[in-house]
Amino acid sequence: MTSAAYTGRDGLDAISIANRGLNYGDGVFETMRVHRGELPLWPRHLARLLEGAKRLGTPMPDVDFVEARIAVMVSAVEASVLKLLLTRGEGGRGYSPPDDALPTWILSLLPLPPMPAALRVHPCETRLATQPALAGIKHCNRLEQVLGRAEAVRAGCDEGLMADMAGNPVCATSANLLVLHEGRWRTPPVDACGVAGVLRGWLIAQGLAEVASVTPRELDNADNLALCNAVRGILPVRALGAREWSPHPATGELQARLAMAYPMFEHAGTNP
Amino acid sequence: MTSAAYTGRDGLDAISIANRGLNYGDGVFETMRVHRGELPLWPRHLARLLEGAKRLGTPMPDVDFVEARIAVMVSAVEASVLKLLLTRGEGGRGYSPPDDALPTWILSLLPLPPMPAALRVHPCETRLATQPALAGIKHCNRLEQVLGRAEAVRAGCDEGLMADMAGNPVCATSANLLVLHEGRWRTPPVDACGVAGVLRGWLIAQGLAEVASVTPRELDNADNLALCNAVRGILPVRALGAREWSPHPATGELQARLAMAYPMFEHAGTNP
Repeated sequence: MTSAAYTGRDGLDAISIANRGLNYGDGVFETMRVHRGELPLWPRHLARLLEGAKRLGTPMPDVDFVEARIAVMVSAVEASVLKLLLTRGEGGRGYSPPDDALPTWILSLLPLPPMPAALRVHPCETRLATQPALAGIKHCNRLEQVLGRAEAVRAGCDEGLMADMAGNPVCATSANLLVLHEGRWRTPPVDACGVAGVLRGWLIAQGLAEVASVTPRELDNADNLALCNAVRGILPVRALGAREWSPHPATGELQARLAMAYPMFEHAGTNP
Repeated sequence: MTSAAYTGRDGLDAISIANRGLNYGDGVFETMRVHRGELPLWPRHLARLLEGAKRLGTPMPDVDFVEARIAVMVSAVEASVLKLLLTRGEGGRGYSPPDDALPTWILSLLPLPPMPAALRVHPCETRLATQPALAGIKHCNRLEQVLGRAEAVRAGCDEGLMADMAGNPVCATSANLLVLHEGRWRTPPVDACGVAGVLRGWLIAQGLAEVASVTPRELDNADNLALCNAVRGILPVRALGAREWSPHPATGELQARLAMAYPMFEHAGTNP
């Protein structure tokens, strides 16, 4: 079984064309690393999912039931990615959410993505719009990221770095940004745009990174850059456009700290 | 037959959970008035659909084939709404669009919405983010509108008026704004946010409305307000929050001009 869809607790054979996820991107999702039959970062993913559902006013399915279905799906899986997509379900008149929405949720097992030793990153032209009502949560309105990633692919890069409307870097299309400056790691705030990454949250909670705005000039003068997310861990940046960085011991140290806490990230930044 | 889904020219039994519309809102749509077996505004809807597909880089299905399927679906329909949803289909790694995407498109017949004689409109707290890359087209990233409409429903109103981040009114959640000032109808620009409505486009092309920014003060001082879209035509606003307007002859004249060109809108603003 590599995927399963539900409305509330009822298994679905198919997604309705009336699903609000399909029509409006009216949902939230989590993309999680599976390691030896478990999701080591599940509590942080669940917390963000609950925050997203609360902000959108989407009812949550029974969490115990969701956890039980996840356990069955990943129990025999050594290393993979589990995606949990939660939409407001069907119904309502146009944009108006239904009063009695029964959420639709979908679990899908996906292969691990490539883990290059270091990333070539494209500075995207596409900017992130300022929208505090949606910033931070991992909602399904992702056209900015789709456009940004398409730019990165056209440029032959692994990822794309996106700036806010003022031109300040915020995050990559599917990872948060870490900027090394005078021995400390900064990561830009995500209260106006961007996603509050689960691994970013862990790094901040551990005191390994601090939230601070970064200007384009500070980015250019950074001692090192890395990207982080809950699937690939911490990956060094070797180039951003024409600017290149050599490997830096601080990045290796940060990766080692993460691997101590979460051994599934031991091979992040290697090309097995 | 009230709905049909296709990938390219192949009929689909169900929408895949891998569809990019469901996962990222990676698509565009049109909501069109059906009148006596035809879509009188189809050329304008098609033009916007093509513009949206071009901006997102989504391939279009064969337009002749789409038109033939629409003709079959609406031929015996007196009055209804046809929704055409076009997504980038399946595939790609994460946000990265697939090179060889086969678009998914879905036709659905929906009932006509209520046509109140005049609308109570709620001034939404939720703002529209500035995003020129997506402004004007009718894409499927509609969480701002979902949040705005939910506000309007909670306030007991028919619609919600949304402002940009500077506080200037732009459009309703599913209609454009018309503001009467010194005998002329203004409609705010939609090049930074908002949707370039098909009926708005017709009114501008006819010289019946002009594109001009409107401040909150000008809105409050307007002689009359109306909302317009391609499904309900032109509907007068009788209240925006606490501010109320009496019926104005200019609004009736504008409705009459529209009904002369498009008789399907003869009953707009009446409660049959």
